[in-house]
Amino acid sequence: MENNGLLKDAAQALENVRAQCPLIHNITNYVTVNDVANIVLAVGASPIMADDIAEAGDIAAIAGALVLNIGTLNARTVESMIEAGKRANRAGVPVVLDPVGAGASALRNETTARMLREVKLTVLRGNLSEVSFVAGVQSNTKGVDAGEADAGNDAVAIAKQVAQQLGCVVGITGQVDVVSDGARVAKIENGVKLLSKVTGTGCMTSALVGSYCGANKDAFTATVAGIATMGLAGEIAYEAALGGDEKAHIVPGTGQFHIGIIDAVSRMDGETMKARAKLYEVEG
Amino acid sequence: MENNGLLKDAAQALENVRAQCPLIHNITNYVTVNDVANIVLAVGASPIMADDIAEAGDIAAIAGALVLNIGTLNARTVESMIEAGKRANRAGVPVVLDPVGAGASALRNETTARMLREVKLTVLRGNLSEVSFVAGVQSNTKGVDAGEADAGNDAVAIAKQVAQQLGCVVGITGQVDVVSDGARVAKIENGVKLLSKVTGTGCMTSALVGSYCGANKDAFTATVAGIATMGLAGEIAYEAALGGDEKAHIVPGTGQFHIGIIDAVSRMDGETMKARAKLYEVEG
Amino acid sequence: MENNGLLKDAAQALENVRAQCPLIHNITNYVTVNDVANIVLAVGASPIMADDIAEAGDIAAIAGALVLNIGTLNARTVESMIEAGKRANRAGVPVVLDPVGAGASALRNETTARMLREVKLTVLRGNLSEVSFVAGVQSNTKGVDAGEADAGNDAVAIAKQVAQQLGCVVGITGQVDVVSDGARVAKIENGVKLLSKVTGTGCMTSALVGSYCGANKDAFTATVAGIATMGLAGEIAYEAALGGDEKAHIVPGTGQFHIGIIDAVSRMDGETMKARAKLYEVEG
Repeated sequence: MENNGLLKDAAQALENVRAQCPLIHNITNYVTVNDVANIVLAVGASPIMADDIAEAGDIAAIAGALVLNIGTLNARTVESMIEAGKRANRAGVPVVLDPVGAGASALRNETTARMLREVKLTVLRGNLSEVSFVAGVQSNTKGVDAGEADAGNDAVAIAKQVAQQLGCVVGITGQVDVVSDGARVAKIENGVKLLSKVTGTGCMTSALVGSYCGANKDAFTATVAGIATMGLAGEIAYEAALGGDEKAHIVPGTGQFHIGIIDAVSRMDGETMKARAKLYEVEG
Repeated sequence: MENNGLLKDAAQALENVRAQCPLIHNITNYVTVNDVANIVLAVGASPIMADDIAEAGDIAAIAGALVLNIGTLNARTVESMIEAGKRANRAGVPVVLDPVGAGASALRNETTARMLREVKLTVLRGNLSEVSFVAGVQSNTKGVDAGEADAGNDAVAIAKQVAQQLGCVVGITGQVDVVSDGARVAKIENGVKLLSKVTGTGCMTSALVGSYCGANKDAFTATVAGIATMGLAGEIAYEAALGGDEKAHIVPGTGQFHIGIIDAVSRMDGETMKARAKLYEVEG
Repeated sequence: MENNGLLKDAAQALENVRAQCPLIHNITNYVTVNDVANIVLAVGASPIMADDIAEAGDIAAIAGALVLNIGTLNARTVESMIEAGKRANRAGVPVVLDPVGAGASALRNETTARMLREVKLTVLRGNLSEVSFVAGVQSNTKGVDAGEADAGNDAVAIAKQVAQQLGCVVGITGQVDVVSDGARVAKIENGVKLLSKVTGTGCMTSALVGSYCGANKDAFTATVAGIATMGLAGEIAYEAALGGDEKAHIVPGTGQFHIGIIDAVSRMDGETMKARAKLYEVEG
């Protein structure tokens, strides 16, 4: 990680969020919305949730970024997401889409397709299964977790292909995370397996990406920084949850680990990121 | 608890959940949905929440179990619950109903009655007041907590009667928990009083029952195991929250206790259950 | 704080909540609803959430208090809030309004105005920006946080003016909290800055005010006690989160601090309040 320009940019991006405190508009699911709001606050931004169509566009237009998450979409909120996305586009506000569970139902498939038609994305952030589905690669989504059938696919190739296809940054999270803007490709190797045992770590990652986008022009760096923040927070929370207790338990309890993720983000600074984030550009 | 076949079966049921990781579809309330998702993950299953009628049936049909919870029902989600229940029935997917606050309003009463008419339940899980209401016994529900007026009723008799009436397993939680399938009756004596001071412990119990049903054919054992898991987690969380601090406070703080419940479920294994669960069959 | 009648009354008000366990009906936002339910339980009351128009009025009429929160209002729940408010008024049930984000969108502005026309409030609880908006003072709300442009305004003057205008108690929370019923004015000087880095501390404060109103006739004292409970809990949580670790971190992690707030409320008693609450009447 020695002479790593991207790492320095990511660390600076965090300082920019803390300095500017951008307003982040989230139209998201009711399962993880509290964690999403708290992680946005923890990284130094300011969350607002507004999903009625009578105000979603107005709020999106004044926000620093808009984060759309289809985890518990319904007929009412889909319309609000589309409207908010269009208004964000018109106002030059970055739009992040988290296509939770894309591939799992016709409703999610149709909604994702419609969003891609009607809203210009800045960032698409999902797991390999979800992003593969969006790209039209055969996928086998089981619920909201990455289908195992996708494990053999090449995240780098898919990220780059989808980024070029949609003209946006694509972030694919998994054991190794991959980000591409169609030209550049970065890998991030932070994180712990236990992150998959807490609901909402994906949603929180997308909200972090949105928070970074709200204070940084370069969406590629913002996406790398957002994903790295979650992975690094997972590592720090894991260590904290083990405490002096490493022999007593095989793994930390997931309740305490969950809280530790928010603790770690709230305490994170550019120095910690420079010292511990394992992120770097690769040949795409 | 020495030579206890039910206890061995419950411990095995937990191992089955962890081995099979069934997909659990929850149409539940927005108050406790995050805890529900995290407790499903903690016990080793995989949660999905989908409540739009355009996808609720499709998801229910591919799930390992469906959990319906009327804690914050509304006109839209009631239809989704009914549709999901019917599709689960057709696909042979077990259905768990948590009739939160049954008896507290006409809407809840009518919804519960309609569900019983249109959906075949696998398990009905509630407190004595809620289940009594469903059974047509005079009840005095105050909000979502068990009415004190019910405290004198015989949970064993009601559980058995309702189980026969509805042809499903009935789980009544309270100071002593009771489960019946109409023939067999079991009691579970785990738990601590403080569980009533954290919202969602009932909802989480129903989600645990659903998780067990998703990986185990015998719904009676699954219900016993799900309820015992919560009671035992409450005891372990209580002990953990006290820490070395037993003299300083009368009771642990409910925030830390809440997190400790999820910790305890995430760490629970068959051995812990065999060593500490106080569950046994009784003459009904 | 020596010979302070208001402080004694506030401490007694807490004991009254714990003794009477009033049912508190919340129609609130889905971001912080879990914390709202848990804080109501922690202070000794009993929460119920019911937002379908088919039951909202029925539940409001039997509640000890009704708390309306427009944090994630939508066309459906606005009607339920109005209906619940009217039924609470008819039944003599106190109504607390938290106008989250008032001033941030036309929808919130129109909804707040309509509520004031159709529902008689017992308490209006917000930050200076939100309450200023309601009073018609020029305000500059940025999302749900108090606009900095308001920082120079005189919270005492606004609280008193709005209280007289609306004929209700007004509680304005900020660095120093102010409560007025139009005649009396109180200040509360508890709290820590970190409370603004956890979502829902405002919502929880309003739910605490509602809980106190459910067990105490004097809404002025109830509002003072509710606001002081949150400020004091923030201080205790801050101290607890620092633990022996004061040199390692500039501030406690916000995840642990969040949990500590609920811990502190669940352990709070009249003695703690008398010893630590910094509340007193001032000349208005």
